[in-house]
Amino acid sequence: MTTFLDRLFDAGLLFETGVDGLYGRSGAFEDVIAAFERLIDRTGGTDGAEAIRFPPGMNRAFFEKSGYMKSFPQLAGTVHSFCGNELDHISLLKCMDAEEDWTKEQKATDIVLTPAACYPLYPTIAKRGPLPATGALFDLQSYCFRHEPSTDPARQQLFRMREYVCMGTESHVTDFRQLWMDRGTAMMQAVGLPVEIDVANDPFFGRAGKMLANNQRDQNLKFELLIPITSTEKPTACMSFNYHQDAFGTKWGLTLDNGAVAHTACVGFGLERIALALFHHHGLDVKTWPEAVRQTLWG
Amino acid sequence: MTTFLDRLFDAGLLFETGVDGLYGRSGAFEDVIAAFERLIDRTGGTDGAEAIRFPPGMNRAFFEKSGYMKSFPQLAGTVHSFCGNELDHISLLKCMDAEEDWTKEQKATDIVLTPAACYPLYPTIAKRGPLPATGALFDLQSYCFRHEPSTDPARQQLFRMREYVCMGTESHVTDFRQLWMDRGTAMMQAVGLPVEIDVANDPFFGRAGKMLANNQRDQNLKFELLIPITSTEKPTACMSFNYHQDAFGTKWGLTLDNGAVAHTACVGFGLERIALALFHHHGLDVKTWPEAVRQTLWG
Repeated sequence: MTTFLDRLFDAGLLFETGVDGLYGRSGAFEDVIAAFERLIDRTGGTDGAEAIRFPPGMNRAFFEKSGYMKSFPQLAGTVHSFCGNELDHISLLKCMDAEEDWTKEQKATDIVLTPAACYPLYPTIAKRGPLPATGALFDLQSYCFRHEPSTDPARQQLFRMREYVCMGTESHVTDFRQLWMDRGTAMMQAVGLPVEIDVANDPFFGRAGKMLANNQRDQNLKFELLIPITSTEKPTACMSFNYHQDAFGTKWGLTLDNGAVAHTACVGFGLERIALALFHHHGLDVKTWPEAVRQTLWG
Repeated sequence: MTTFLDRLFDAGLLFETGVDGLYGRSGAFEDVIAAFERLIDRTGGTDGAEAIRFPPGMNRAFFEKSGYMKSFPQLAGTVHSFCGNELDHISLLKCMDAEEDWTKEQKATDIVLTPAACYPLYPTIAKRGPLPATGALFDLQSYCFRHEPSTDPARQQLFRMREYVCMGTESHVTDFRQLWMDRGTAMMQAVGLPVEIDVANDPFFGRAGKMLANNQRDQNLKFELLIPITSTEKPTACMSFNYHQDAFGTKWGLTLDNGAVAHTACVGFGLERIALALFHHHGLDVKTWPEAVRQTLWG
């Protein structure tokens, strides 16, 4: 059976690398992502967000403090390097020649791959001091890493996430979240994609994680915008809408200028997933996409 | 003393992350990189290169075969993950709570951070079979990792490299390299940057590495386009021009359609370095840059 992933390879839109969930992208694939990002810019551009672009790795100390290893230890990627001397190097090369495991001697660096585009933001903004009473809004994008090898092209290990992050009072950030749930739904309709919004099911690790997942659901802390890509029964989360209450404000020391702890919320676009949804629904050749969709993306 | 890095932080162009060589970028910084990439597009756009964008990580098996660990083991970054069960997870969290080293239990994944944008390309293209007699040309860009923490902003651990890679006969690829040495010089002059071209001094590891470095120099295999940024005596390599002879063709099985082993060459732009050179020479506020430079970048 020819899968959607096979068809993406055959059409030259993605390139195999020999690792599940790690693919090269063609120019045509990138053009779709760039066009969708311009649609995001047009939709959110007048909100006055401050644009920051972090690289795909973050400070390990901040990552540790974030608590990610409590919830999703299996997904994180730490970056390790060779830190030995010349004799160690000779042993390393012998080990590699013998095709034995040479990676055990690698030592952790200060860098961890970014798990979501907004992780490096909170400590960066906390350093600036109290937020203005009107809150603050940020526009982020970066490659993110999740160690979950899969042959589902909509579940890649390295993928790009575009995010808006809002900090302020509870009503300020929950209004922001609702605004983007409405905008996201309208954007997907404008590019001809069927959407459904539901509470999220994050893959918290282990039995203890089930409680965290139940809590997240019961409090409606995270919603997802779902679009069928590789399965109709289990549509893919192409956007997410998170309300963190004051959890990040407390953890990172984000305060408002009246001294109150800031609430935060973020909305994220899974850029590869959205591109894949477009290719799945409209075909692998962008020239044959419905004129209205082409007009929205490239008009 | 206020360093150039301090001034970049103070101007809000780069953001500290607490790790040397790992910085967030402002929207204004990104606009300069985007503008310079458009200049690259205009310069090389009619050559008919195939655009491919690889993510910032590559297949570890290909990385191992590349020989990078022989030459630059200290610079590589392998990606490691938690692969344990629930009991292991409890131990991990105890270890983190006690502020002990929890990273030893991380296991190497199949992914290594990309050391240069073209590393994933060669095995990808070899799989297609023989190259046409007219050769092949590729346009790449990705974040790359080098583990060399430094307070020199022109030496970052995660940075973007734009590359063109040419495969074909010896004269084909050496002509390509010369063309880009001329183009690169003209491009830098068009944006008001003083340039000098010299043979490269790559940081090969250890005493054995000195021989590799001497060989590289003696054979003129690699040139660099240098621009003073943080030092006048030691200007920074902002472009490099590599002729690999048939080394990569032989290693990866790249052949021409007459059966000959392909020669390869690549030219790379260090995008952050070029942006930093522009900020260093023309000032930290792009609005005050010389009109001719602004015209070339944003005309």
